[in-house]
Amino acid sequence: MAETAPWITYRPELTVLDCTIRDGGLVNDHLFSDTFVRAVYDTCVEAGIDYMEIGYKNSHNVFSSDDYGPWKFCDEEDLNRVVGDHDAEKTGLKLAAMADAGKSDWREQIVPCNESVLDLIRVAFYAHQVSEAIEMIEHCHSLGYETMANLMAVSNIEDVEIDTVLAAVAPSPAAAIAIVDSFGHLYRENIDRLYKRYAEAMEGTGKEIAIHAHNNQQLAFANTIEAIILGANRADATMAGLGRGAGNCPMELLLGFLRNPKFKLRPLIKLLELHVEPLRKQYQWGALIPYNITGQMNLHPRSAIQFLASDESECYTKFYDQILADV
Amino acid sequence: MAETAPWITYRPELTVLDCTIRDGGLVNDHLFSDTFVRAVYDTCVEAGIDYMEIGYKNSHNVFSSDDYGPWKFCDEEDLNRVVGDHDAEKTGLKLAAMADAGKSDWREQIVPCNESVLDLIRVAFYAHQVSEAIEMIEHCHSLGYETMANLMAVSNIEDVEIDTVLAAVAPSPAAAIAIVDSFGHLYRENIDRLYKRYAEAMEGTGKEIAIHAHNNQQLAFANTIEAIILGANRADATMAGLGRGAGNCPMELLLGFLRNPKFKLRPLIKLLELHVEPLRKQYQWGALIPYNITGQMNLHPRSAIQFLASDESECYTKFYDQILADV
Repeated sequence: MAETAPWITYRPELTVLDCTIRDGGLVNDHLFSDTFVRAVYDTCVEAGIDYMEIGYKNSHNVFSSDDYGPWKFCDEEDLNRVVGDHDAEKTGLKLAAMADAGKSDWREQIVPCNESVLDLIRVAFYAHQVSEAIEMIEHCHSLGYETMANLMAVSNIEDVEIDTVLAAVAPSPAAAIAIVDSFGHLYRENIDRLYKRYAEAMEGTGKEIAIHAHNNQQLAFANTIEAIILGANRADATMAGLGRGAGNCPMELLLGFLRNPKFKLRPLIKLLELHVEPLRKQYQWGALIPYNITGQMNLHPRSAIQFLASDESECYTKFYDQILADV
Repeated sequence: MAETAPWITYRPELTVLDCTIRDGGLVNDHLFSDTFVRAVYDTCVEAGIDYMEIGYKNSHNVFSSDDYGPWKFCDEEDLNRVVGDHDAEKTGLKLAAMADAGKSDWREQIVPCNESVLDLIRVAFYAHQVSEAIEMIEHCHSLGYETMANLMAVSNIEDVEIDTVLAAVAPSPAAAIAIVDSFGHLYRENIDRLYKRYAEAMEGTGKEIAIHAHNNQQLAFANTIEAIILGANRADATMAGLGRGAGNCPMELLLGFLRNPKFKLRPLIKLLELHVEPLRKQYQWGALIPYNITGQMNLHPRSAIQFLASDESECYTKFYDQILADV
């Protein structure tokens, strides 16, 4: 068979989700200005991005509005203020929000799909929350939303737990399930193994596999490519990789890799220049040494975040010794 | 066959080369202090690293000592001043220098191996310089050195040129040939294809395949892992990824991935804290947006380096438009 160059062609069914406001909002308690959120929205439309996740649908009882910005809750009035004119058909962009199992008043918070600008609800959950997650997916589906299942922190649970989650998700109405590397711990070989496991469990259901990677070891983009090569048809990214700790797969790299001519890089570069890179004056994110260390050790980045906010933020050896003593 | 977890085991024959001073020196015209060079050396020894490339053996006629530091030339007196006490057998570390085809007075500059602390000469060349490169490899081999062939900028030449180079290197005394992604352009699929090509051409010669990756698209570490998984037994990295433009594969990530217990991470973390990260006050390196763009477009990073040194260093859209107009 003649050799081909798949890296210069594309799969039309592959869709990209921007989660800059939702996941990036973990760096600033979702206190983005309306201008910033709208700029990301306009950029997603111009760049041909398929989904924009504009925040969490999480509970006002769990999180106080005094401490967190509107995108922690995605109240319909906030959505309408900033993207009330949204038209999914005209723009080619669908709007998404994430609801966390255990942190969302989803029965009350989520209005019927035809009363909201939102098109997709992604349900995020830890393995032990799978039963609530399935209820949430069924509920949101019955309200008319497309749904997705995001099993978090997959590097930290047992194979048998993963299998149990996959078996529960398979018959659910979720359109896709995501491989979520919350700790930025996974190497290429781990992605391969998980992809195979997820794909086998979803066989015959028509569900897509999604990839959501973190950059603790500078592997977010590479692992996203890897999952795409294997067959994942949904990929998450954020502008400039904005996200808590080491951040996410950078959208500007992902769009450079994808060859679907509908994707445009220039609007992104402009957004980075005018809106995202200036945020670095206030917030820090990226694959800094303490995140390299927590990623390697398969730990939540919270200890690294605390360390980097302390007076000893450059005493990497001390941090390394602490972490080593604790594991 | 039972499933195995190759990512927690190791290949004893896999060796790591630190090229912080040689390649990293391209950020500061090789003007490192002796203290810095010695600190890198001591760290390599403590960390169990196999080779340290301490600079170039390049010509005083091509480069002026007024403009460049000693590690552009690796004169024996400079080597002896800083690492004159080097003992490869005792430390387990071998010292290397790189000689550039067309830029080295290699016939005069390189002394017999038994008169030098150096163990390995790596010959760097562009495809059209392959004939001089082979002469250099043969000469250095006859002086008693281990040798390596580093074909640069492989993303920018034709398959038939690569094949011609590989055919010339195969019968040479070089111990290894490196896949060198000078522009940080290669994706995983490109690495796979090149690895296969290099490995087939070297079959039966006993030569190893090496990987030398740049980080323009945040893929240096991922592509290094990829080559290693495929069978590359020599990997290059630099401390904190120090290197011109986007820099190199970060050693602290590579050692975290390798599972040979001889490799120690702590000495590296200490070096980063005390010596390497402080350099960021003077020099800039890493996968910044202009390097993302040149990497995607398969261009030498020089335009991005110039741009980042200009008054408009944050006008990414202007840079993008310029580059697009030029290609």
